[in-house]
Amino acid sequence: MTTGNINVAVENIFPLIKKFLYSDHEIFLRELISNATDATLKLKHLTNIGEAPGVEYGNPQIEVKIDPETQKLHIIDQGIGMTAEEVQKYINEVAFSGAEEFLEKYKDSAKDSGIIGHFGLGFYSAFMVADKVEIISKSFKDEPACHWTCDGSPKYTLEASDKTERGTEIILHINEDSKEFLEEGRISELLTKYNKFMPVSIKFGTREESKTTGEGEDAKEEKLTVDNIINNPNPAWTKLPADLKEEDYNSFYRELYPMQFEEPLFHIHLNVDYPFNLTGILYFPKLGNDLNIQKDRIQLYQNQVFVTDNVEGIVPEFLTMLKGVIDSPDIPLNVSRSYLQADGNVKKISSYITRKVADKLKSLFNENREDFQNKWNDIKVVIEYGMLSEDKFFEKADKFALYPTVDGSYYTFEELQEKIKDAQTDKDGKMVILYASDKDAQHTYINQAKERGYEVLLLDSPIVGHLIQKLETSKENISFSRVDSDSIDNLIKKDEEKISKLSEQEQETLKTTLDEVIPKEKFTVQLEALDSNASPFTITQPEFMRRMKEMSATGGGGMFAMGNMPEIYNLIVNTNHELVGQILNTKTQAKKERLIKQSLDLARLSQGLLKGEELTDFVTRSYQMIK
Amino acid sequence: MTTGNINVAVENIFPLIKKFLYSDHEIFLRELISNATDATLKLKHLTNIGEAPGVEYGNPQIEVKIDPETQKLHIIDQGIGMTAEEVQKYINEVAFSGAEEFLEKYKDSAKDSGIIGHFGLGFYSAFMVADKVEIISKSFKDEPACHWTCDGSPKYTLEASDKTERGTEIILHINEDSKEFLEEGRISELLTKYNKFMPVSIKFGTREESKTTGEGEDAKEEKLTVDNIINNPNPAWTKLPADLKEEDYNSFYRELYPMQFEEPLFHIHLNVDYPFNLTGILYFPKLGNDLNIQKDRIQLYQNQVFVTDNVEGIVPEFLTMLKGVIDSPDIPLNVSRSYLQADGNVKKISSYITRKVADKLKSLFNENREDFQNKWNDIKVVIEYGMLSEDKFFEKADKFALYPTVDGSYYTFEELQEKIKDAQTDKDGKMVILYASDKDAQHTYINQAKERGYEVLLLDSPIVGHLIQKLETSKENISFSRVDSDSIDNLIKKDEEKISKLSEQEQETLKTTLDEVIPKEKFTVQLEALDSNASPFTITQPEFMRRMKEMSATGGGGMFAMGNMPEIYNLIVNTNHELVGQILNTKTQAKKERLIKQSLDLARLSQGLLKGEELTDFVTRSYQMIK
Repeated sequence: MTTGNINVAVENIFPLIKKFLYSDHEIFLRELISNATDATLKLKHLTNIGEAPGVEYGNPQIEVKIDPETQKLHIIDQGIGMTAEEVQKYINEVAFSGAEEFLEKYKDSAKDSGIIGHFGLGFYSAFMVADKVEIISKSFKDEPACHWTCDGSPKYTLEASDKTERGTEIILHINEDSKEFLEEGRISELLTKYNKFMPVSIKFGTREESKTTGEGEDAKEEKLTVDNIINNPNPAWTKLPADLKEEDYNSFYRELYPMQFEEPLFHIHLNVDYPFNLTGILYFPKLGNDLNIQKDRIQLYQNQVFVTDNVEGIVPEFLTMLKGVIDSPDIPLNVSRSYLQADGNVKKISSYITRKVADKLKSLFNENREDFQNKWNDIKVVIEYGMLSEDKFFEKADKFALYPTVDGSYYTFEELQEKIKDAQTDKDGKMVILYASDKDAQHTYINQAKERGYEVLLLDSPIVGHLIQKLETSKENISFSRVDSDSIDNLIKKDEEKISKLSEQEQETLKTTLDEVIPKEKFTVQLEALDSNASPFTITQPEFMRRMKEMSATGGGGMFAMGNMPEIYNLIVNTNHELVGQILNTKTQAKKERLIKQSLDLARLSQGLLKGEELTDFVTRSYQMIK
Repeated sequence: MTTGNINVAVENIFPLIKKFLYSDHEIFLRELISNATDATLKLKHLTNIGEAPGVEYGNPQIEVKIDPETQKLHIIDQGIGMTAEEVQKYINEVAFSGAEEFLEKYKDSAKDSGIIGHFGLGFYSAFMVADKVEIISKSFKDEPACHWTCDGSPKYTLEASDKTERGTEIILHINEDSKEFLEEGRISELLTKYNKFMPVSIKFGTREESKTTGEGEDAKEEKLTVDNIINNPNPAWTKLPADLKEEDYNSFYRELYPMQFEEPLFHIHLNVDYPFNLTGILYFPKLGNDLNIQKDRIQLYQNQVFVTDNVEGIVPEFLTMLKGVIDSPDIPLNVSRSYLQADGNVKKISSYITRKVADKLKSLFNENREDFQNKWNDIKVVIEYGMLSEDKFFEKADKFALYPTVDGSYYTFEELQEKIKDAQTDKDGKMVILYASDKDAQHTYINQAKERGYEVLLLDSPIVGHLIQKLETSKENISFSRVDSDSIDNLIKKDEEKISKLSEQEQETLKTTLDEVIPKEKFTVQLEALDSNASPFTITQPEFMRRMKEMSATGGGGMFAMGNMPEIYNLIVNTNHELVGQILNTKTQAKKERLIKQSLDLARLSQGLLKGEELTDFVTRSYQMIK
């Protein structure tokens, strides 16, 4: 048996790092700025604990500079710097992490210093975009500056430098394939994407500002050239909720989404440090009824460095419709999504976020119900989706989820029950909740229900079919019916005898007459003895089939053949209406038919079923009738 | 000045490889199976060129086996194998690529051998999911087998093994965090995702098959246990078009999308080897009018290994609505998307694909016009989108893009021009193309146009506004008008004098009467002397504003305030219609008003504007009128 050490040959690994280190080359800038930030924060820490005597921390910044002529990109910090010896140690040894060493050395005191570095590989990502890389560094210690150069082969040179200011300058000689990184627009885009909230100020170029000096007649407009700082080192989520006002949250929202003109409806500030570290702010945007809203607008950070806007697995599915930021060093990122979902920490994070969102909604509901009601239509898809997908959320949301009526009242489920139980309990003791999906399209039906003193909910979100189904199975003795799913008498069956003006014999004759004219394949004719003021003809669409079809349209298990089932309509004919009596008693067949057809057309108009040529014919006929 | 070599310490890089090598741990299986495939293809190549005397290539396969009890995953091939010496060389040296060495050594002869390996890192991805990895290998050469073990530290052991069959077995001792990879379902999912079309058969488990032996009365049903081969080593795209029938393409489509029940409309076989290598098959699925169709259904492969289903930048935007596969070793993947779009090779690939698609469409049109017409509605969004976004495609598509009429005829633009130029050229010599967007909703208007002998196109795709705009600017002296954008006389203005039955005085009186009843904020009243049979009241919606609003709804530069503009409607009153004369001459104000309102309601019905309470009132009123 032989034993030995696996060997890594630098001439083999180096070309790989160049091509392969990150799947996206643009990452190099994030890595170099993270290093510069660490160098600055290390100095801050040392001055804080008195280990950098004589050093003034001041207000250091990181500068990014493009030199298109010489095709160079500079990243310059005013941080801790490196001596020649340290360059030997940290740079010439690939994957030796200075950050880890620092954190190890200063353990407890450095825990919250915000230092990012981890693997000690980031620097080498420079070689993905540069043929040659230089480091010029002057340590905060009283030692000479040094100048390191490497042309991408594993060979380097190290010599003295005359740099006098403290800190490190990285110079990238951008390669042929990476010229995009010499464009101001591209660099600006990357800085905005990855470094917008990093904790040390980052300067990129300058801009002009006007300043008025002097007063009154001496007032002069002066043009000043000022540093263009691209980041906000103290983003709202790193502050305490107590230190922030409503307008601070709103202005941070505009910082996050500059192209977004609408204000968010409200925010949720996340802040926890045990058993995991997580801060962040989530916003409820106006969502309306669109389920296909752009998801993945929540940005994930680690120590203020942007990581990704794919929070799948970290945030429960129904909350991916929200916007905002989450910052946590405790989310493992280089693992498969399926592992992420099984990870204990991540599960806890996900259920913590769910709970915080539910609690916030509850307190908004309790504190200002009117405001909550006004926002309901813009947030309901999230809440309804959450109720469907997370049982724990359902339990909590059941207390604040609202059921609006067509008249603009908003009830919780409990209030609704209280309100309608007397009028809307049927003869079998079941409470029937009536709803409409469209106030305009179902106006006639809504009217009829309201005339009976029934409440009609307006449930128009795309997943409401699924929610109704869930409510019917989790609550006892209730059922939902859309107002146009049956005749008003049958929607909520009471123990009342119905008296028909027509004898049984007359009803049979009427039925035969109607069946001859009404197309069987489209409508099933039902005679009903309704109020004589109720509509003579009404078209209804049975609840069950319609709901199943709607549910299958928005997705849902096991129903996928439903979408192709035909629409089923009933034609309810009110035997107590004068017009119906007239149809029965009309002698000429032609006139009978004309009466039935015109009545059927009017019923179809009310259900939105009269279209195209038939509508044109109806309109033409009706103009004739006015004259 | 000092010079030196950058150093990579194995104890630093090794932990990194474990955590960091791929952003997704599941990749390890793809890598190990790629290695096993290479080992097999190398042997095939050597037997082909006679450098493996005495070796029978046979029908080798790769086997994947889970052992849940001992928590091990095995990948076993029957390929070239390694001697102890080769293990030392290829395995113990991280990032030394045996594949590159092989290709270098056998240069020309091995060019088309299909060998995948590149960086020599893939094997180490095993340590992302395993605590300990073993290799047991027997070379095709007459040398003893060997057994290599490494527990994830850089230390390994190497000893003799008694393995007698040729090939390599990799054994992963799956770690605590990666138990998912001991589940049959998970491994099966990964094999399907990454290895479904790899060139060597992959066995994963067994399945039962029934077989009937004997005949007639002796017939017996036997259960046989057969190998479960999860891949198709010879997918359709690797074959020559001449060797494939229509049904082969369709069955490959079902292989690619097993959950897809609809057949594709047609396919395009891509095959080019200069100036880049690319093979593939693209399919046109039925698209209908949905622009939000799921994109990214095209799968990208390199040498039959699945890489990604994000082909953004490689395939022009408008073709991402298609489905299928593209296989090319020439697409650089570890670069940023913006670089990809600037890359010369990738640009060529993109324009090659565009050209092939245009040529295929042209030949379908030429060879079987009727079939092409039947498919038009399912492919038009792609073609229209392409015409809008790629000028070269516009030029080609102008010859086969179709313009359907409401009566089901299909014209090319040239044919359309020929057909309508006589009837539909206005007094200024401009050809006016009439269209409808909905046969039902605009039925009344379509009817009027057809009565004049005009052709009415049915243009109902969501981006048609943009296409119309493009056609109006790229063709001379034409304009598009929707049939309900003006009165029939004004849609195409001719040099005909219009005679009104009403005197100017009467017209003024009528105008005043109408303005008192018709709500000004909704309708602008226009009196027109039309045919006495034309509708008395007609509501029109001017072309320009409506089109701009529609265009801004589907996105498009510079129009973003348009979406919020109010809808503008004109009410055209036909002064030659009997009913209008009646309105003028009715004495009582109440009756006048009733006539105007009922006429307006009928006009609104025709334009789909009568809804909700107003519709309910109209229906109730109309039931009264029938009685």
